[in-house]
Amino acid sequence: MVRIAFSTQLEYDVLDAGCDFIFNLQAAHTPRQTVVEESLGFNQSVTASYYTDAQTQGRFIALHATQGLFSINYSAVVDLTHFEAAPSALFELSPQALPGQVLPYLYPSRYCQSDRLLAFASQQFGNLPMGYCRAQAICDWVRSNVLFQGNTSNSNTSALDTLIDRVGVCRDFAHLMIALCRAANLPARMASGMDYGADPVLGPQDFHAYVEVYLADAHGLGRWYMFDPSGTAIPMGFVRFATGRDAADIAFATIFGSVSTTQPIISIQAVVNSQGQLVLPQHVAYALSTDGD
Amino acid sequence: MVRIAFSTQLEYDVLDAGCDFIFNLQAAHTPRQTVVEESLGFNQSVTASYYTDAQTQGRFIALHATQGLFSINYSAVVDLTHFEAAPSALFELSPQALPGQVLPYLYPSRYCQSDRLLAFASQQFGNLPMGYCRAQAICDWVRSNVLFQGNTSNSNTSALDTLIDRVGVCRDFAHLMIALCRAANLPARMASGMDYGADPVLGPQDFHAYVEVYLADAHGLGRWYMFDPSGTAIPMGFVRFATGRDAADIAFATIFGSVSTTQPIISIQAVVNSQGQLVLPQHVAYALSTDGD
Amino acid sequence: MVRIAFSTQLEYDVLDAGCDFIFNLQAAHTPRQTVVEESLGFNQSVTASYYTDAQTQGRFIALHATQGLFSINYSAVVDLTHFEAAPSALFELSPQALPGQVLPYLYPSRYCQSDRLLAFASQQFGNLPMGYCRAQAICDWVRSNVLFQGNTSNSNTSALDTLIDRVGVCRDFAHLMIALCRAANLPARMASGMDYGADPVLGPQDFHAYVEVYLADAHGLGRWYMFDPSGTAIPMGFVRFATGRDAADIAFATIFGSVSTTQPIISIQAVVNSQGQLVLPQHVAYALSTDGD
Amino acid sequence: MVRIAFSTQLEYDVLDAGCDFIFNLQAAHTPRQTVVEESLGFNQSVTASYYTDAQTQGRFIALHATQGLFSINYSAVVDLTHFEAAPSALFELSPQALPGQVLPYLYPSRYCQSDRLLAFASQQFGNLPMGYCRAQAICDWVRSNVLFQGNTSNSNTSALDTLIDRVGVCRDFAHLMIALCRAANLPARMASGMDYGADPVLGPQDFHAYVEVYLADAHGLGRWYMFDPSGTAIPMGFVRFATGRDAADIAFATIFGSVSTTQPIISIQAVVNSQGQLVLPQHVAYALSTDGD
Repeated sequence: MVRIAFSTQLEYDVLDAGCDFIFNLQAAHTPRQTVVEESLGFNQSVTASYYTDAQTQGRFIALHATQGLFSINYSAVVDLTHFEAAPSALFELSPQALPGQVLPYLYPSRYCQSDRLLAFASQQFGNLPMGYCRAQAICDWVRSNVLFQGNTSNSNTSALDTLIDRVGVCRDFAHLMIALCRAANLPARMASGMDYGADPVLGPQDFHAYVEVYLADAHGLGRWYMFDPSGTAIPMGFVRFATGRDAADIAFATIFGSVSTTQPIISIQAVVNSQGQLVLPQHVAYALSTDGD
Repeated sequence: MVRIAFSTQLEYDVLDAGCDFIFNLQAAHTPRQTVVEESLGFNQSVTASYYTDAQTQGRFIALHATQGLFSINYSAVVDLTHFEAAPSALFELSPQALPGQVLPYLYPSRYCQSDRLLAFASQQFGNLPMGYCRAQAICDWVRSNVLFQGNTSNSNTSALDTLIDRVGVCRDFAHLMIALCRAANLPARMASGMDYGADPVLGPQDFHAYVEVYLADAHGLGRWYMFDPSGTAIPMGFVRFATGRDAADIAFATIFGSVSTTQPIISIQAVVNSQGQLVLPQHVAYALSTDGD
Repeated sequence: MVRIAFSTQLEYDVLDAGCDFIFNLQAAHTPRQTVVEESLGFNQSVTASYYTDAQTQGRFIALHATQGLFSINYSAVVDLTHFEAAPSALFELSPQALPGQVLPYLYPSRYCQSDRLLAFASQQFGNLPMGYCRAQAICDWVRSNVLFQGNTSNSNTSALDTLIDRVGVCRDFAHLMIALCRAANLPARMASGMDYGADPVLGPQDFHAYVEVYLADAHGLGRWYMFDPSGTAIPMGFVRFATGRDAADIAFATIFGSVSTTQPIISIQAVVNSQGQLVLPQHVAYALSTDGD
Repeated sequence: MVRIAFSTQLEYDVLDAGCDFIFNLQAAHTPRQTVVEESLGFNQSVTASYYTDAQTQGRFIALHATQGLFSINYSAVVDLTHFEAAPSALFELSPQALPGQVLPYLYPSRYCQSDRLLAFASQQFGNLPMGYCRAQAICDWVRSNVLFQGNTSNSNTSALDTLIDRVGVCRDFAHLMIALCRAANLPARMASGMDYGADPVLGPQDFHAYVEVYLADAHGLGRWYMFDPSGTAIPMGFVRFATGRDAADIAFATIFGSVSTTQPIISIQAVVNSQGQLVLPQHVAYALSTDGD
């Protein structure tokens, strides 16, 4: 069992008389991701509303901050007990066989315009064997054909832009992989979380965006499996915050007003677990899920 | 109480060995929209899965059809008991005061890229009094600035396209209104349903796409209210099928395979209700909702 | 020497009080394309202005037609004496070595947004040997990766759209090849003309759009060479009308007003030349140009 | 007569083995813009090619620089003898009455997709009186509806983006005005030059992009007249470098290779003219042109 400890600190200078915030930066409660302890604090006296989405377990914090400095600090210790599966034992479900609540993840979204990519996905991935390996082939294609480079994209950048420009950051890799998966009839969603194991050469520790694809076992039982198309970190160490159709749904902060801000201060490490062992996340060849049973 | 009877018939020539379909064309069950009777039939022997989305009450039919002619027939009689409110009694909630499940309707989606329209919405609608009248002003702006014309848009057309091209059909009007509402911090969603009262000069009876905006009464109690930006029909006669972030979520048919198809055959009329009265839908000056209490 | 005879007839129903037209549908005079005879007629009594662009030899007809039926008929007999070169004898010039008047064909244009494709072109074509064969590789890539299909694009469709959607007609193939060439520092322009040798299965005889790339011989002498990325016809039989940055410059008809129109009526054939021989255009392995010396 | 003295210094760190440059930063020779003296220098020993476009008088410098620091210095003294006209004396020519070489400026280009804006331009500007005042109305509309703000756009930003985002710099204002003019059948082109009179609060002295519109006097004699949609400077002091369809044609530097660069060092001032007078450029109510007779 992997135990991860992390902390995040966000600071804003609220420029207007006041400003509403929606945050998504708490570790989700899932059957395989247990929040052992957590702490949340603000530098202003605020009344926050807390909401957990019933389907995705995403936890939203909504609040109003007043003019001046506003900071939010969150830290947690999380136990990860991954569901593991052999890639060869994971299959695709045809659209009509998908659970109803999975259908939206087949449809295009703001940053993942899969409706435009049907011909390309069919050409490129349509003849591959179906199953986990096809999702992995899409992941690999994105990683091989897009260059990871900071400050090359912005909050308007979509999968179509990345397919054209061939450059981006983790968010852009995730959007392109999701769009291609959906165009190939593979339900795919975006996950946000902590970027465990990122190479320091890529810059200061940051949040991470990655992908989950819905695949089924031999009994037809489906589950969301993790993929990391940017390949910059170690999925076994990812702590999941939220999942959604794309970045529009799961921004760590959505801000309604004028603020200036600085780079978040984030730290993350694997720590000794309840059995007294330090299990370090590592790259593995099998499929991982933190999803429910 | 308005009672509407309608029927729809869709025909497809399935060209591949087989094809999956997801349909959204049944009348939703809401506290103010009662399905008195309905009938659903297929010309092929199919096993269909039925799914009702817990949040939106949208009813999905998923099935697999085999090569050759496939037709689906649906008819229903529906009672509409609208919730009515005076426009001046409806207010906007600030983002942090919205219920969690409403938040996604503030965010951009495939066809409603509100993130690009913040400056424009602020310029054009930012100084108006807040409330129902601001949503109405956005509705009116779209109706005044976009020309209704068939065959001018396609399934890729988004709100940004319509803002540029200034032409479209009901779907495009709805997308642009939704995008502008969200950019102005008004939660907005798309509804699909029956196009009661459409002028026959616009072509054969068709499905309709319109808009619902989330507004609150003086007690802060929120509800989704109907707007019809294309202005081609009579909202009081709309039977709601599904609601979603935009057309990607609520297409009456999402098709996974090759088919050729023809124009749906649709009829709709107001009929005598259970009190023996024929109440004809009409344009009204107050706000209407078919949403729950 | 190939001799081609062709005729075109365009008909418009001018709906407004009147309408301005700019036509580009006459055979260009180039050192290797001789107009042996031609005839031009209108069904209305119009005063037309004729303009030949000094750099491209494109011939423009500008006129005003009045309400009602307006038709233009043009026919010509043209001798083609192609400049021929061995592909292996054609080289690329670096940007600083290009003639000044060729520079604009390195820059992005309305439908050929090469500025967005630098990374992709470098990835895909950057390591190929330079010269004619690299232009041919781009031509082949476009032909292999895009599906020719009518009614899949419109007058807004650009190279970026075609790269995403992977479907189009000759105009779209040409735009994508041009954009990729420019992104790879190969000057490229669009040519319009007669579609000799098109397979009748693609529909009635139509105009054609193809590509010319600027390459130099061993002495550094440059010339524009023909490529046909859609591969639907026989370049040796192409009669050139106009060349330009892209379709925006060389539409066979640019119309300023409301008209309804029908499919042009076009015929083309190879005929007996002045030496009494019938030389039928054929696919050849060497490079062809109708450009000047 | 206005006399302007200016100097520009550009520095590049050439990262590859070498790099080709195309520069457009010399004062154009026009009948009303006389280059009294100029000096041009490079820090490397380069062989440069000089090309003047016959139609636009744009002067291109093409050269190859080697790895390491490369700088180009240019300074000039220029006399401006503007052609002046009363706005009420300037008229529009219908498309068919335009000189052939003006036609390309009616057509869409990379950053000015006027083909998408026909309906909007007709709606917004179609009922205004024709002539200089209509071009001025378009200029005013752009200035009123777009916010000038640095670092909000990039080299991909087009007129459609600016129409949506409502923010940009001088280049973006120019592109949007040009696109709207063309959509309204007013030939329009982009000019680059020196930004005389810019408010220092907008940042260090920089190059400028503005607009020229083709209008005719009562005798039908056409000429290009200056407009400054961003309104940040004083047109009477503009020294013209190049004109083109849009920024793609007239970038002050087009670079084929990897470089890092810094902000140009630029100075400009009005100086004593040959009659011993210091004429300071000022805002005027009449139309100005530096175009030929």
